[in-house]
Amino acid sequence: MIISMIERKGNRSWDQLRKVKIEQNYLRHHPGSVLIEMGETIVLCCASIEEKVPSFLKNTPQGWLTAEYSMLPMSSRIRTPREAARGKIGGRTHEIQRLIGRSLRAVVDLKGFGERTIYIDCDVIQADGGTRTASITGSFLALAYLFTDMKNRDLIPKIPINDYVSAVSVGIVNNGILLDLDYAEDSRAAVDMNFVMTGQGKFIEVQGTAETGAFDRTQLSEMTDLASRGIQDLNLIQRGILRNAI
Amino acid sequence: MIISMIERKGNRSWDQLRKVKIEQNYLRHHPGSVLIEMGETIVLCCASIEEKVPSFLKNTPQGWLTAEYSMLPMSSRIRTPREAARGKIGGRTHEIQRLIGRSLRAVVDLKGFGERTIYIDCDVIQADGGTRTASITGSFLALAYLFTDMKNRDLIPKIPINDYVSAVSVGIVNNGILLDLDYAEDSRAAVDMNFVMTGQGKFIEVQGTAETGAFDRTQLSEMTDLASRGIQDLNLIQRGILRNAI
Amino acid sequence: MIISMIERKGNRSWDQLRKVKIEQNYLRHHPGSVLIEMGETIVLCCASIEEKVPSFLKNTPQGWLTAEYSMLPMSSRIRTPREAARGKIGGRTHEIQRLIGRSLRAVVDLKGFGERTIYIDCDVIQADGGTRTASITGSFLALAYLFTDMKNRDLIPKIPINDYVSAVSVGIVNNGILLDLDYAEDSRAAVDMNFVMTGQGKFIEVQGTAETGAFDRTQLSEMTDLASRGIQDLNLIQRGILRNAI
Amino acid sequence: MIISMIERKGNRSWDQLRKVKIEQNYLRHHPGSVLIEMGETIVLCCASIEEKVPSFLKNTPQGWLTAEYSMLPMSSRIRTPREAARGKIGGRTHEIQRLIGRSLRAVVDLKGFGERTIYIDCDVIQADGGTRTASITGSFLALAYLFTDMKNRDLIPKIPINDYVSAVSVGIVNNGILLDLDYAEDSRAAVDMNFVMTGQGKFIEVQGTAETGAFDRTQLSEMTDLASRGIQDLNLIQRGILRNAI
Amino acid sequence: MIISMIERKGNRSWDQLRKVKIEQNYLRHHPGSVLIEMGETIVLCCASIEEKVPSFLKNTPQGWLTAEYSMLPMSSRIRTPREAARGKIGGRTHEIQRLIGRSLRAVVDLKGFGERTIYIDCDVIQADGGTRTASITGSFLALAYLFTDMKNRDLIPKIPINDYVSAVSVGIVNNGILLDLDYAEDSRAAVDMNFVMTGQGKFIEVQGTAETGAFDRTQLSEMTDLASRGIQDLNLIQRGILRNAI
Amino acid sequence: MIISMIERKGNRSWDQLRKVKIEQNYLRHHPGSVLIEMGETIVLCCASIEEKVPSFLKNTPQGWLTAEYSMLPMSSRIRTPREAARGKIGGRTHEIQRLIGRSLRAVVDLKGFGERTIYIDCDVIQADGGTRTASITGSFLALAYLFTDMKNRDLIPKIPINDYVSAVSVGIVNNGILLDLDYAEDSRAAVDMNFVMTGQGKFIEVQGTAETGAFDRTQLSEMTDLASRGIQDLNLIQRGILRNAI
Repeated sequence: MIISMIERKGNRSWDQLRKVKIEQNYLRHHPGSVLIEMGETIVLCCASIEEKVPSFLKNTPQGWLTAEYSMLPMSSRIRTPREAARGKIGGRTHEIQRLIGRSLRAVVDLKGFGERTIYIDCDVIQADGGTRTASITGSFLALAYLFTDMKNRDLIPKIPINDYVSAVSVGIVNNGILLDLDYAEDSRAAVDMNFVMTGQGKFIEVQGTAETGAFDRTQLSEMTDLASRGIQDLNLIQRGILRNAI
Repeated sequence: MIISMIERKGNRSWDQLRKVKIEQNYLRHHPGSVLIEMGETIVLCCASIEEKVPSFLKNTPQGWLTAEYSMLPMSSRIRTPREAARGKIGGRTHEIQRLIGRSLRAVVDLKGFGERTIYIDCDVIQADGGTRTASITGSFLALAYLFTDMKNRDLIPKIPINDYVSAVSVGIVNNGILLDLDYAEDSRAAVDMNFVMTGQGKFIEVQGTAETGAFDRTQLSEMTDLASRGIQDLNLIQRGILRNAI
Repeated sequence: MIISMIERKGNRSWDQLRKVKIEQNYLRHHPGSVLIEMGETIVLCCASIEEKVPSFLKNTPQGWLTAEYSMLPMSSRIRTPREAARGKIGGRTHEIQRLIGRSLRAVVDLKGFGERTIYIDCDVIQADGGTRTASITGSFLALAYLFTDMKNRDLIPKIPINDYVSAVSVGIVNNGILLDLDYAEDSRAAVDMNFVMTGQGKFIEVQGTAETGAFDRTQLSEMTDLASRGIQDLNLIQRGILRNAI
Repeated sequence: MIISMIERKGNRSWDQLRKVKIEQNYLRHHPGSVLIEMGETIVLCCASIEEKVPSFLKNTPQGWLTAEYSMLPMSSRIRTPREAARGKIGGRTHEIQRLIGRSLRAVVDLKGFGERTIYIDCDVIQADGGTRTASITGSFLALAYLFTDMKNRDLIPKIPINDYVSAVSVGIVNNGILLDLDYAEDSRAAVDMNFVMTGQGKFIEVQGTAETGAFDRTQLSEMTDLASRGIQDLNLIQRGILRNAI
Repeated sequence: MIISMIERKGNRSWDQLRKVKIEQNYLRHHPGSVLIEMGETIVLCCASIEEKVPSFLKNTPQGWLTAEYSMLPMSSRIRTPREAARGKIGGRTHEIQRLIGRSLRAVVDLKGFGERTIYIDCDVIQADGGTRTASITGSFLALAYLFTDMKNRDLIPKIPINDYVSAVSVGIVNNGILLDLDYAEDSRAAVDMNFVMTGQGKFIEVQGTAETGAFDRTQLSEMTDLASRGIQDLNLIQRGILRNAI
Repeated sequence: MIISMIERKGNRSWDQLRKVKIEQNYLRHHPGSVLIEMGETIVLCCASIEEKVPSFLKNTPQGWLTAEYSMLPMSSRIRTPREAARGKIGGRTHEIQRLIGRSLRAVVDLKGFGERTIYIDCDVIQADGGTRTASITGSFLALAYLFTDMKNRDLIPKIPINDYVSAVSVGIVNNGILLDLDYAEDSRAAVDMNFVMTGQGKFIEVQGTAETGAFDRTQLSEMTDLASRGIQDLNLIQRGILRNAI
């Protein structure tokens, strides 16, 4: 296995996650609000409910879960103009919010919370690479807290989650593989992959893109292994926080 | 003078500001980023520069300053749909961001920072009343820090600010006047006024709206007095933070 | 009191309104249509009803009143591009139409005309300063005529208006105060204030902006006095036209 | 020839235009502003110049002329929502403003007024049928006045107009033909045609639509004759007003 | 009669249609899908139903028919940007799709197919002049096939079409008249007319535009004659294809 | 390896592509236009050049390549409303057109065709699953033809393509893996993956989504193998068509 020998910020090893920090109930009135930090990437993930479903689900036993993602204009080094000011949501945003929604729906029982819509809001406060994976990892916690609160308020009989979900990036930098890329690493990566996986170590989403050149079967295999290990670490962190509550 | 006798959260007196908390350099890469908390209202205010001016100022000795304001969807108790998703910016947002821009331009020498545009971004993390006034008070600090950094990097010879600016709300609740309304107070107020004032105690903006009924000349006078006192307190806080640097 | 000594068009004194001209029933099929001229500012104000309310008022005893404002492209000296062609309404328009709506709602009993929406349309034919204040003064008359017509047709038992409303601008030009600024004066004003007041002389809206510099407490006071006198004059004109019908 | 025997408002005969009223210089600062009334249809037509051309004409000897058309919300009996509020221009508006633009360009020498764009703004104050034809007839006058003013100010050496233009509608109502339909007639018409013709009696635009059924060759011929006569009358009016100035 | 002596592609005579080719059931799952080729102009015309009507027809015995038209970006010689990417539909598209809709509604009994909406989709694959007339001629066939299928499936008792419809262009090129202009001819035409006519030879729509100069009564008459002959030919082709099924 | 035992349309085996049909020069005036059919999925892929680059590449030696994707409204079984009519491009469309663009840029030398932009237009005529993969496979051919034409016209010295690109889907249906899913299979799939690969068998994009449940490492491996075989077949077809011209 060819691992990347580049020197990483904070002496991180090639197979090490950035420091993860979770702050629950970040917004005082919203139990399903979580601030997740992965190194210098900071995302506010909120889960909330609306007492109705989209029209295509009217009069079915099923609820819905949808996600929205946005970067604050100053979250990146160079100010990014607001999508609200431009009057439309760009392709990258669409892609990411669809990914977050699919990832969470994969472990949620949509029939388990009534005729309601769950909104997942991921707002990037500071971006240093891996905002979409941090959004997924953080949103899972936000969702767990929301459901816990709903259960405590007797809105649902049990927490309708089948498995844990977290996400991590891997990449090829300087010909070697690397876990959980920050922005500086990401911008030099030849290949960039994102994995969304369950607590059981199964795959929900696999997305890999060759930025320069293309990658072969062995590299795909190694990146998959590395991602699986990163996901295990994230899963332990999630379990520690939720204390097996779900 | 008729003061409001309602009991306020945290035993605040009728003429007392909420607790103000300022965190400078909130975003690691942006010296002009300030998190301001006024009680439970939390706004991230960032000042940044772009190396060009709007077309109507091309080839003039003047720069420009413009402001944008947005509420995160979960900043309020009930989720507010994103303006980006709706594809347009609403009237209230327009009103507020124009107010912030005018207020800061009033104390800035637009010829003092070259052919550049300063963006003020106010993103409300948590809303509990007074988000527009907190945005102005916080943005002034963000702007001061930005200019300080620009001066340190020799981009400008001196800090092109003529005076301090801060803003505060006053209102009439239960027939009495009240300083710095929180959301619960604001939603019961018969009159709602916002004052933007200089460090010298002069007026930049006065905006008063009767929500129910109308108010008389005496009430206008009393509210103006109360606001002036609130502004003095805010000005002291700003001076303390900036340590007379400007 | 420091009054402005500038020479005004038509030998107007510093505390004198421009000539007001009102044409009722300007549009043949709409009793609630009023053409108001204040000097060379000409606004067509129409009040009309729609037999439904916005969704947030469905099944309540309350109706609604909303206002829209627009300038014809050639109303100003330099052609202004249409907001319809640009595909969105600008910030200034939003600000003004919200102001008109709030001002009229302040004196209307929203429970007094059934489950209906009243539209106030203010279309500026010619702009020479003070279009928003003329819009409010004229719309009040349009609304009174609409209600009179509704009462005559037995759609409502009585006219659901609690008080008169009119609006006027004051400003500081050449260091002195001035009533009802025209465009030339307005563009030289250091301070620009708009007052919306009732027939009883109470305040509904107060909006003051320092264009250059800032203004002190004395100036605020003097401008308030001057505005009150202007409002009295406007109120007399309104009463004369309506002949105490409401 | 089968003429319509319906009784017309004001005892108008089947081949008679509505009363035409023209007010030049309707807007004080714009010589190219004309208020045209045809019966109860009232349109404000303004011609103005902008000192640049669309990008596809940059660096050519040619200028451009474009038209915009809009109905005030209350111009019709039932309030029409603003296109600015809906965020886009509807199909009918597009159709009409393209027609007005083409009609005027047909008689204007686009090389005769330099690298400029002429804007024609047609704003319908009151709509009682025939707003597009009134817009064309009135805009021709507005354009003639604009050019006259430009010539007087030595901006152009001569008036770059080759011929007169006016427009009129004809229709089939109650199986008979009718000139210059008002709204009540138009809404009962089986066929609705609009003709744009020159002072020489030639055709610039012919547009006919069968609303119910279809029309035959004889009817087409008769409608064409009737329109030609109406155009002659309009041309006399235009000549009278312009006093052969062009 | 002055006929155009220009040499036409494929030795076509001045009064000859381009070669017409029709492919029914072009899309496997849609009986109402027709590919029409007129020379090198190729349009995919589809008729489909939706089981609801626009709100203004709710609870009436009437259905609705509406048309949409679009050019693929590469259908013309120079790539045309997509209207979806620009975020709005242009004036020309609006004009054409309204024309197609009106033309078909003129021969359809809107009460004959229940509370349904028929969508006509015309997508131009290759554009070589006359796309709007080909769209109408082809859409009529698509509609006939849709209704035949609906009748076969017992959704309607009989085919609710009153007459045939087809459309053709005529023009004046090099001072002579010409039938069914291709792109090269159209771009040189002084006059461009489109006729929509019934199988009975009656007129549904007549639209003529002078591109340069204006045309006289004789020319109008000759163009009308020529169009009538072209329509007869198109009608024969339509009848042959439908084998008098309707 | 667990292969899917479901019966496939046309007796296709589990590891067999649908019948591929390519029509080059589908649009008469565009050498870079290709109609690709994969079974009943039909996509028109066009490559064209514009003689300028996006602003972020101005004055660099680099050109750009961008892709747009759209489904004709009737390409699917149920009519899909046009994105142009809705005024914005949806998330799925964004995702797909970004994928097509990245896939082709991965094998193109952006410095090899001057300061130009290449547009790839993929318009789905008929959709039966796999439209995005067919778009990529077809667009590669369109691009090769465009470059061949440019080379023949001496616009470029050599064809700036480094490798072949094609794409294929695999999935898990009834617990077994399956190559190149059609719509019926796709809608029953538990997992859906798309692979974009080079002629050398390397990966450019890997995208896998678990629709229900999640998939394990073995399944990921088997799907990767199967996709690689499908890509080899597609590559042979592409080579056969291009006859090693590139």
